[in-house]
Amino acid sequence: MSYTVRSGDPALSISGSGTGWRTYAQNDLSPILTCALQCFMEHGYHGTTIRRVAARCGLSVPGLYHHYPSKHSLLVAITSHAMADLWTRSEQALTEAGPSLSDQFDFLVECVVLFHSRRTGLAFIAFSEIRSLDTSARAQHIAARDRQQALMYAVVEQGAKSGVFATPFPREASLAVITMCTGVAQWFRPDGALTPEQLVERIREITRMAVGK
Amino acid sequence: MSYTVRSGDPALSISGSGTGWRTYAQNDLSPILTCALQCFMEHGYHGTTIRRVAARCGLSVPGLYHHYPSKHSLLVAITSHAMADLWTRSEQALTEAGPSLSDQFDFLVECVVLFHSRRTGLAFIAFSEIRSLDTSARAQHIAARDRQQALMYAVVEQGAKSGVFATPFPREASLAVITMCTGVAQWFRPDGALTPEQLVERIREITRMAVGK
Repeated sequence: MSYTVRSGDPALSISGSGTGWRTYAQNDLSPILTCALQCFMEHGYHGTTIRRVAARCGLSVPGLYHHYPSKHSLLVAITSHAMADLWTRSEQALTEAGPSLSDQFDFLVECVVLFHSRRTGLAFIAFSEIRSLDTSARAQHIAARDRQQALMYAVVEQGAKSGVFATPFPREASLAVITMCTGVAQWFRPDGALTPEQLVERIREITRMAVGK
Repeated sequence: MSYTVRSGDPALSISGSGTGWRTYAQNDLSPILTCALQCFMEHGYHGTTIRRVAARCGLSVPGLYHHYPSKHSLLVAITSHAMADLWTRSEQALTEAGPSLSDQFDFLVECVVLFHSRRTGLAFIAFSEIRSLDTSARAQHIAARDRQQALMYAVVEQGAKSGVFATPFPREASLAVITMCTGVAQWFRPDGALTPEQLVERIREITRMAVGK
């Protein structure tokens, strides 16, 4: 799949705006970032040249630089988009869940599993290319990741304190639940036996058991 | 840390030989592969030149080629070592566990968690650079990964059939347990609050709950 950019690259759209945190557009990255993501997935960040990205978009190199001043800025835009989209959806999911910690847990699990089964490429690059971000961008990315993980930890810790969850280890249980939910990006296949929604049902059951719910 | 290779690069040693699947040497990669792994971790496979690996080992480029004919062969040796070491340790753990499915589950979880907390760099490269392997090496790597995952699946599936585990979804539960155990490579820090052995205790508890044990 290759895109040709005809006019200015539109701003990133977060498709899960409003209460649509369960809804995923086919692709909500701009055409240029879609091409860059495909190149990074095939050749790695370091193995990708700006010329290759430009060719894939049907742009000249100066044309691409008009939108993004460097290869690094493409990676920053992709990883920032991933973290911002997951964050927005997570906040919406928690809002919809209301005050019940049990529901908050289920909705957050659903949100993270849906994201990682619908956005496997994005999740892979946002995880595996952290080392390729410069110091400042890496610090921002890690802060965003920590903020995201803290959502699950807060729910599990409060649930453990108040007896909603039986786990004696809320810290490790929340990290284990997060890696279970993000781990689906490693093995879920869209053409496999389960739909993302069916996958959610199963992972929900397993994560509930993991925290002693 | 940098190594100077003075004589022939010794064959890879699997430190978990015999029944020592819980024992980890400081480093059981050969000096050349240690240097290559460090370069891959810092710059990615595509961002690493053979010249950089040679310089790090204190070898000339022809000197390095004498041991490994290509950069690709370094990556193959590293990923093969990772999968072979984990496999050997897993077989030993299952043998030591004996016929009890419950013990087999606990020992296999312990084995995978120890490996991924002791060998975080190796685990990261073996996962994130699969795409950089050529077709034949990638097929071999994926076969090794599938064989490894099948160990956990067999234990969980048999346990679910025989009522040792209550999970209604043995397939997804085993994948979830695997990603929980391998996921520690993403967040475990040797200078953190827990030792690998303490981490094992907690993950064991959480994974037991996840399968309904």
